[in-house]
Amino acid sequence: MRTTEMIDSHPVGTDLDRELLARALDALHACAQACTACADACLAEEMVADLRRCITSDLNCADVCGVTANVLSRHTGYDSTVTRAQLQACVLACKACGDECEQHAGMHEHCRVCAEACRACEEACRELLATIA
Amino acid sequence: MRTTEMIDSHPVGTDLDRELLARALDALHACAQACTACADACLAEEMVADLRRCITSDLNCADVCGVTANVLSRHTGYDSTVTRAQLQACVLACKACGDECEQHAGMHEHCRVCAEACRACEEACRELLATIA
Amino acid sequence: MRTTEMIDSHPVGTDLDRELLARALDALHACAQACTACADACLAEEMVADLRRCITSDLNCADVCGVTANVLSRHTGYDSTVTRAQLQACVLACKACGDECEQHAGMHEHCRVCAEACRACEEACRELLATIA
Amino acid sequence: MRTTEMIDSHPVGTDLDRELLARALDALHACAQACTACADACLAEEMVADLRRCITSDLNCADVCGVTANVLSRHTGYDSTVTRAQLQACVLACKACGDECEQHAGMHEHCRVCAEACRACEEACRELLATIA
Repeated sequence: MRTTEMIDSHPVGTDLDRELLARALDALHACAQACTACADACLAEEMVADLRRCITSDLNCADVCGVTANVLSRHTGYDSTVTRAQLQACVLACKACGDECEQHAGMHEHCRVCAEACRACEEACRELLATIA
Repeated sequence: MRTTEMIDSHPVGTDLDRELLARALDALHACAQACTACADACLAEEMVADLRRCITSDLNCADVCGVTANVLSRHTGYDSTVTRAQLQACVLACKACGDECEQHAGMHEHCRVCAEACRACEEACRELLATIA
Repeated sequence: MRTTEMIDSHPVGTDLDRELLARALDALHACAQACTACADACLAEEMVADLRRCITSDLNCADVCGVTANVLSRHTGYDSTVTRAQLQACVLACKACGDECEQHAGMHEHCRVCAEACRACEEACRELLATIA
Repeated sequence: MRTTEMIDSHPVGTDLDRELLARALDALHACAQACTACADACLAEEMVADLRRCITSDLNCADVCGVTANVLSRHTGYDSTVTRAQLQACVLACKACGDECEQHAGMHEHCRVCAEACRACEEACRELLATIA
């Protein structure tokens, strides 16, 4: 990822804290990727019928993280109201998915790794959110 | 769109009001499409430098609407907390984009049509949101 | 959907056939929505283990249709090479998903409706593709 | 990114070369992020009117990379025809965007960094594509 280089090369710059922003963007991509992969791994499990809720929370979290990264990358005509609300939705999607995956972490390694990605992303988004007035 | 047919053929069904859900899903797709098209039309305008804010609100709104439609389409393992937060973010993204496009509606027909799509989507999402406990 | 109004209000216009473009855009959104809903409905079925392939083709088709609609909506700095390749990928994703859903159409109404949406989208994309030099 | 851990924890595994797949997935996310950021940075430039083509190629490339990562992450019910076509579209989108950004690389650092991300992604996708029968 060239996240920091891209942030630093913006002609106008961002109202957001650059370090927290870069960390959030990297965490969002890592979480989206883990969730998409976890949904597919759950689908391949023999006990797929017991993992329905996990698959849905994975798919939602992957989608929400991807869009949140996009919104956070747009500083031109920045709107803190939209950014804040999307970050809040993302924190909740990551929390829901982290909680769900954690319940299967002992049985499925992909859920364990995915839960970690969700926790890291939830935390990075919370920290960034706390700085937005 | 075969939105209602798809909702009615779900084996378990949804906790959401079916009519409001179908209306919201159709409005979300129409709004996402209008916003993506409006961003491109703004970019093609001679006065593109004055439309920066509009392009960003279009891109954000298109992204947010697309993901909100996905989240609203997942009833298996439904999580009202995530759905509510994503709908709230969507209402704000539609409002921001509708407000912005409205300012250029007299000069640019694409902004006028896009503002209408944003208003319709904002309203459909608000109505659905009001029914989610 | 205000697809035609948005196409007609573009300040520069498109190299593509407007009628075929509007039809493709509407079909792409309808197909994306049907596929997202079908994936969720399949996940809720008791026989979910037999529907794994269908869920994956639904998820892929929904994603590919959404992005193809975006690419087709950008006329400013239009690149026929990218548009053509993305349309080709979309035709194949719709065909794969239509074929898969059709196999379950007798048993699951959501697969029957989704297969119809895939066929319509595949055809609309093929017709548009045939006009791109 | 926990890309390799997620690939290795899949219960069934993938038909694709694991190392090339992991490299492609990481490159796709890095490229999507760089392109989204570059589109916004171009929009903020004083000479935005000269960067229209670059903004469109950025937006297309970001969208196409995101979806290609999703398709590549689904091994359950894997369909090589769809995967190959989507990878081909992605290679072309990365090439188009890399070529375009390179033309502004001397003047805009964000275009220089984005061009690098596009080249790396194009190459990673080409290498993976070469292994798919």
